[in-house]
Amino acid sequence: MPAVAATKGPVLVVGTGLIGTSIALALTRLNVPVWLQDLSPTAQALAADMGAGSIYQGDDTPSLVIVATGPDVTAKVVCDCLDRFPNAIVTDVASVKEAVVAKVEDHPQASRYVGSHPMAGREVAGPAAADADLFQGRPWVCVPTEASSPTAFLAVRELATDVGAIVSQLPAKEHDQAVALVSHVPQLVSSALAARLAQAAPNALSLAGGGLRDTTRIAASDPRLWTAILGQNAKSVASVLGPLVADLNQLLSAFQASEEATVALPPGLLGAINQVMLAGNEGVKRIPGKHGDSPIQLAEVGVLVPDKPGELGRLFAEVGDAGINIEDLRIEHSVGQQVGLVWLSVAPVTAQVLSDFLTNQNWRVVLA
Amino acid sequence: MPAVAATKGPVLVVGTGLIGTSIALALTRLNVPVWLQDLSPTAQALAADMGAGSIYQGDDTPSLVIVATGPDVTAKVVCDCLDRFPNAIVTDVASVKEAVVAKVEDHPQASRYVGSHPMAGREVAGPAAADADLFQGRPWVCVPTEASSPTAFLAVRELATDVGAIVSQLPAKEHDQAVALVSHVPQLVSSALAARLAQAAPNALSLAGGGLRDTTRIAASDPRLWTAILGQNAKSVASVLGPLVADLNQLLSAFQASEEATVALPPGLLGAINQVMLAGNEGVKRIPGKHGDSPIQLAEVGVLVPDKPGELGRLFAEVGDAGINIEDLRIEHSVGQQVGLVWLSVAPVTAQVLSDFLTNQNWRVVLA
Repeated sequence: MPAVAATKGPVLVVGTGLIGTSIALALTRLNVPVWLQDLSPTAQALAADMGAGSIYQGDDTPSLVIVATGPDVTAKVVCDCLDRFPNAIVTDVASVKEAVVAKVEDHPQASRYVGSHPMAGREVAGPAAADADLFQGRPWVCVPTEASSPTAFLAVRELATDVGAIVSQLPAKEHDQAVALVSHVPQLVSSALAARLAQAAPNALSLAGGGLRDTTRIAASDPRLWTAILGQNAKSVASVLGPLVADLNQLLSAFQASEEATVALPPGLLGAINQVMLAGNEGVKRIPGKHGDSPIQLAEVGVLVPDKPGELGRLFAEVGDAGINIEDLRIEHSVGQQVGLVWLSVAPVTAQVLSDFLTNQNWRVVLA
Repeated sequence: MPAVAATKGPVLVVGTGLIGTSIALALTRLNVPVWLQDLSPTAQALAADMGAGSIYQGDDTPSLVIVATGPDVTAKVVCDCLDRFPNAIVTDVASVKEAVVAKVEDHPQASRYVGSHPMAGREVAGPAAADADLFQGRPWVCVPTEASSPTAFLAVRELATDVGAIVSQLPAKEHDQAVALVSHVPQLVSSALAARLAQAAPNALSLAGGGLRDTTRIAASDPRLWTAILGQNAKSVASVLGPLVADLNQLLSAFQASEEATVALPPGLLGAINQVMLAGNEGVKRIPGKHGDSPIQLAEVGVLVPDKPGELGRLFAEVGDAGINIEDLRIEHSVGQQVGLVWLSVAPVTAQVLSDFLTNQNWRVVLA
């Protein structure tokens, strides 16, 4: 059972979509009493049928309210809940915070509100996709306002911890800037890059390798959801996208200048390319690694795996036998090939041991 | 032993860097006699010591010459080799082809030349990093010119097949357009995106998830190598980068307009976002899947793996026992977390079986 009073429940979840129902399932598993409410009687009943809690009857008083509605109505529902339940702590789960906070802050009872952003998006929606483990190991940003009370903050932080998330804390404006940088602008750039493929020749696409697959993977995300998210964070997105587009405009000019130049390599082109490559090296080094260390210092061992049933499973079984901790893993494959290349990331001191072990087991090994 | 006469050797490899030495190692393993030549006596001797062949003494005549020098001198070395060896077939491995072909085409002996592009780049260089398996399952584009003879084409195609590559064929101009689209522009965009992280606050970076990691992974690539490659393909890069930058400029204007707007969601913003998201969906669907089918139709099963030594190995061992073919796999992790989320891609019909199997083995399973 949770330690902080408010998170012992009863908890009211308003909006039983993917996020709301997943929180409800996780809390129910912790024996916290949960009530469910949704504008859609079907979504509400489905969440209850999944064991997420019981349908709210409107006459009891929750200690904690979680607003998990669509982001465009979040602020209004939060204010309504502060009115309806004069003793409850209220949080929401909208992935853009400044717009919500700006409206809730003026509420006379704003001290009982603290915003949340559980970063556990999935490409599916609705209560049927909910999962009690959705937040396990995922970041959850707590967003207190100037008005938030310490009690409200502790309750929301405990909620996040209880459902297994890694909790951090940011003011609304910084939160929105941060997600613009690490999530919203990468999404737009990936989509715009993938959009170039729509008219491409099939024999060009057949040369696609791991680089293209990686850079465009999130371009498969749901347009409806992302249009709602990005539309709420226009200011922060513009502040990150602006300098990026300026850099790309400058690069483009350097490339275009070479079309008009009388020499093969016009002055400025190589310098411009080199500059963006070096800046990219610096930037990517700053992304924290698995254990919070940066840059990531791991060695990679490549293994060629024949593309037939069971071979990848056999590799996994034998890697498991080796007793070496695999920190990360990625698979490279090209169209039409009969083998895939599996890259196992391990601590540098164990790379040679793993390589020798797998070579002895008759795998073809490539050391990076 | 190879079937086509020229590829039975002797083969002369000019330039014993990563690619040249890797080809030499692969051919030596096939019992093809290989001679090695490099401007650097050290690189040449190191390749020979690695078992890639014998140092060329200058008095014998090869049947096939592979020019694997730096891309800026490739055309000149190819022409020299056509002069020096009046009966040899000559190919090169430069990753941009139009500039090379334009110069070699005018050579009176151009019928004996066919270009190559083995797409097996790595983040390391030099003969010490060479590997006989470097080309296994990787694309290798043959680039004949108008002047190329069928004999020369067959020999170069067999060379690629012999070292394990997946062979395709494109004219130089189409090749350069294709690599600009699937490789060069994604590289520039990934680097420019990662460059935005250089000045970011650490608490913003700590929210980085799989999307940012994927889109910026190739931003870690070698600036020197990529400056040389991209500088040779200015025209094709400009033709892909131009429309992409135009799209991003338009998006940026829509976001910026909302800062000046008197309403929260100014007309045009949501439409602009939705349009790029939909176009990205369309584009990413066209990337061929592992077996050449498009779009990729696989189901994902997520497994929570505690972050302690041996757990990933144990999962691999048990997945191996399940006897289900794993088509792909990716690992998600966030900074500071105690568990990672491993996504196993399988044929949709087997997803539930795998999920049940792993649940029975006490893994926490998430179905996508």
